[in-house]
Amino acid sequence: MAHLLSTSCSIKVSTGCKPYSLPYKQDLSAFPTSLTLQASESPFTRLVSRGEKHQRNYTVHATTLPVNKEGPTQPSSGSHQTLKEPSKPQRVMVIGGDGYCGWATALHLSNKGYEVAIVDSLVRRLFDHQLGIDSLTPIHSIHNRLRCWKSLTGKTIELYIGDICDFEFLSETFKLFEPDAVVHFGEQRSAPYSMIDRSRAVYTQQNNVTGTLNVLFAIKEFREQCHLVKLGTMGEYGTPNIDIEEGYITITHNGRTDTLPYPKQASSFYHLSKVHDSNNIAFTCKAWGIRATDLNQGVVYGVRTDETEMHEELCNRFDYDGVFGTALNRFCVQAAVGHPLTVYGKGGQTRAFLDIRDTVQCVELAIANPAQPGEFRVFNQFTEQFSINDLATLVTKAGEKLGLNVQSISVPNPRVEAEEHYYNPKHTKLVELGLKPHILSDSLLDSLLNFAIKYKDRVDTKQIMPSVSWRKIGVKTRTIAA
Amino acid sequence: MAHLLSTSCSIKVSTGCKPYSLPYKQDLSAFPTSLTLQASESPFTRLVSRGEKHQRNYTVHATTLPVNKEGPTQPSSGSHQTLKEPSKPQRVMVIGGDGYCGWATALHLSNKGYEVAIVDSLVRRLFDHQLGIDSLTPIHSIHNRLRCWKSLTGKTIELYIGDICDFEFLSETFKLFEPDAVVHFGEQRSAPYSMIDRSRAVYTQQNNVTGTLNVLFAIKEFREQCHLVKLGTMGEYGTPNIDIEEGYITITHNGRTDTLPYPKQASSFYHLSKVHDSNNIAFTCKAWGIRATDLNQGVVYGVRTDETEMHEELCNRFDYDGVFGTALNRFCVQAAVGHPLTVYGKGGQTRAFLDIRDTVQCVELAIANPAQPGEFRVFNQFTEQFSINDLATLVTKAGEKLGLNVQSISVPNPRVEAEEHYYNPKHTKLVELGLKPHILSDSLLDSLLNFAIKYKDRVDTKQIMPSVSWRKIGVKTRTIAA
Repeated sequence: MAHLLSTSCSIKVSTGCKPYSLPYKQDLSAFPTSLTLQASESPFTRLVSRGEKHQRNYTVHATTLPVNKEGPTQPSSGSHQTLKEPSKPQRVMVIGGDGYCGWATALHLSNKGYEVAIVDSLVRRLFDHQLGIDSLTPIHSIHNRLRCWKSLTGKTIELYIGDICDFEFLSETFKLFEPDAVVHFGEQRSAPYSMIDRSRAVYTQQNNVTGTLNVLFAIKEFREQCHLVKLGTMGEYGTPNIDIEEGYITITHNGRTDTLPYPKQASSFYHLSKVHDSNNIAFTCKAWGIRATDLNQGVVYGVRTDETEMHEELCNRFDYDGVFGTALNRFCVQAAVGHPLTVYGKGGQTRAFLDIRDTVQCVELAIANPAQPGEFRVFNQFTEQFSINDLATLVTKAGEKLGLNVQSISVPNPRVEAEEHYYNPKHTKLVELGLKPHILSDSLLDSLLNFAIKYKDRVDTKQIMPSVSWRKIGVKTRTIAA
Repeated sequence: MAHLLSTSCSIKVSTGCKPYSLPYKQDLSAFPTSLTLQASESPFTRLVSRGEKHQRNYTVHATTLPVNKEGPTQPSSGSHQTLKEPSKPQRVMVIGGDGYCGWATALHLSNKGYEVAIVDSLVRRLFDHQLGIDSLTPIHSIHNRLRCWKSLTGKTIELYIGDICDFEFLSETFKLFEPDAVVHFGEQRSAPYSMIDRSRAVYTQQNNVTGTLNVLFAIKEFREQCHLVKLGTMGEYGTPNIDIEEGYITITHNGRTDTLPYPKQASSFYHLSKVHDSNNIAFTCKAWGIRATDLNQGVVYGVRTDETEMHEELCNRFDYDGVFGTALNRFCVQAAVGHPLTVYGKGGQTRAFLDIRDTVQCVELAIANPAQPGEFRVFNQFTEQFSINDLATLVTKAGEKLGLNVQSISVPNPRVEAEEHYYNPKHTKLVELGLKPHILSDSLLDSLLNFAIKYKDRVDTKQIMPSVSWRKIGVKTRTIAA
């Protein structure tokens, strides 16, 4: 499903960003901007924003760089791969950089001085259309987002639009951009989506597994020192009755001892796709010397980061629907519109959580402290754990402070999962690298609730209830209205 | 890659089987046979051999049965799924039934009184063409094989030619045949093949994972009591420094105890595909109540089974090449033609082995003693373990008895694997079900060597050396001459 910008077009837009009432001081309405997308005979185009910082005019245009078929293209500024162990990677490719975590991460890294390229097929936006759902927040096109970022900060984020399952596309992006690190968010990331029907289950696994295989091959072929930072999920572990370690566990059995991959018990075709990825990556680290970090991330909540709040055109997406919405974000929207909080089953399901501001911090820490060649490093990326009932209680209390009358209801659990269980996952490695967690606080809950209230007119209450059943998934293609 | 019999054709063959000098007493040349493949408007055809046992004439023809779009087609003989727990499954679908293990298994089950259907895309035969390799033994078309089996035994094995990754095809085979058990051999099964190039790596994982997902969905949708008997591999475990259990391990950690999936450390994209399958199947057992047995099979050797030796047209394939050939079979061919035995690296690599006569026995035991609904049962399917050096020594001694001068050479190991390691996998569950192992004996080695000598004129010595490197795999599509 490659979506390549290969046709001729010319677009003029009047401003880099529209002014809004957000904490954003510059008057951008005075910045007329011309955008030209130039056609090329090659399907592979490089979108580069050119222009000086805060100049009144700039042009975003597509150029075709010469492609050296024999090997990686050398950038005019010289190779970035002369050192075997770069002390700090400079060029970071963010695959899936138009999504919830990817967009916040791309801006954060750009702001921190990394050279960033976003690679994205934009298929996440297509899912919204197909399922009849939408972000709570109005989100702008990736093109406008990047123009806005450029006009605000003078920083260019390159854009490669295409599907990493299309290896021809991916290999060209590697040769053109020459990443020192790849942050790979570019997967179908919803467990319910993967459980809609057979075709979505198969799509999720094919898309995620093939995309990651292609990234591994691209690194081996074109950028063997490139550090892969891959987003996994805490859901890979399931809920075992023993402590969850970070990727590996030392087992003594019948008098002998070995340190082995931590056993995985994933509970959806999506979570399974991440387990498959982890296994594939571990193998390539051993066989080829790939350097990789697997970030087993918890459930992310929140919406604002330092960068996305710079301008409303940079605003991140915020999903509250039954397919892509995650528990805490969804509860805040429910509280804002007077919908009962939907607790699935008994609500004793306990999961790991983190603020999106910690997502971007963790990814930067992983990049700044890369894995060694051949090392498959696993970090559990979260800061706190809560049960669903814990979250419902927290949101109820925070809502009451704002004068909201918040109710909770138990709805039949659409998933197959333990509703009461032991849960004690470790998460020390990122703290050791310097993570300063944003703990879920009353003020953050207030802020999230106020955010939901601000956009409550955009809420479609039909999207809130779970519409996908783990047990009822069938072979017929379903058109669900989430 | 669906290969469907949907065109009109008419074939006449003069005999069911040609007479050979094998232990086969009947004069089949007196059995003229007419084969008609009838065209249908549906791409889904059912090949049914009709006729009385050992009658002089029979017709194999394709018919289209009415397909009930609302649910499983009811066979004229009545449903086979009225009991929740059938005491002995009668109808067994063998996916990959034209391959090395699949063919022997299909015949064995048919001989034991099961109603058998083979589902196969025949892509394994295409691999031979593409790689320029061939079985040591001349193998007949699946159509001739089945006609021969019918004429010898009077038993019909149904044939569905198509690709299980094509769900439309697979669902029709389920509705038409209504299996009580599915034995799933239908995967790309060579580790070196999966390591040829990127496209073969991706193909192996897409093909194997998608095919198995489709089988799981077909069982859920059409035959929920059907028992899945899935071929895995001992290679899923890798070579940990502790004993290998059968699928699960009980771990005590920080004072708590749980029984978890045994950690996997697969060492090729092929082996990884089997790990992915195991994880997917385990999830569906839990979420949907699928009943499944994962047979983690060792390296299979040998060629003859009671059924394949009934007639030379039933002869099984025997691979000795660097891509599909397995260690012991390859060594016997090397000894027969005076080629040094090719020991990869130090030769201390230890693996689990079994005779193909035990493969068919184990599969029958699994079918006759099905898993419970929701149970994901794992058996380690092998009888003995040997190092590569052990095998070289055994073949050398056996060759000397036959007057052969057998040499061994160490060749650079094309794989990434430990060449000296602890290895102690358990294998008691199939023995508890009644497996009577065929231990590797002098007489079996004599027989294998004599078999290789018989066909030595068919050996292409260019196929013997390893041609695929784990480390050198790249993104360019390779045309290797194995």
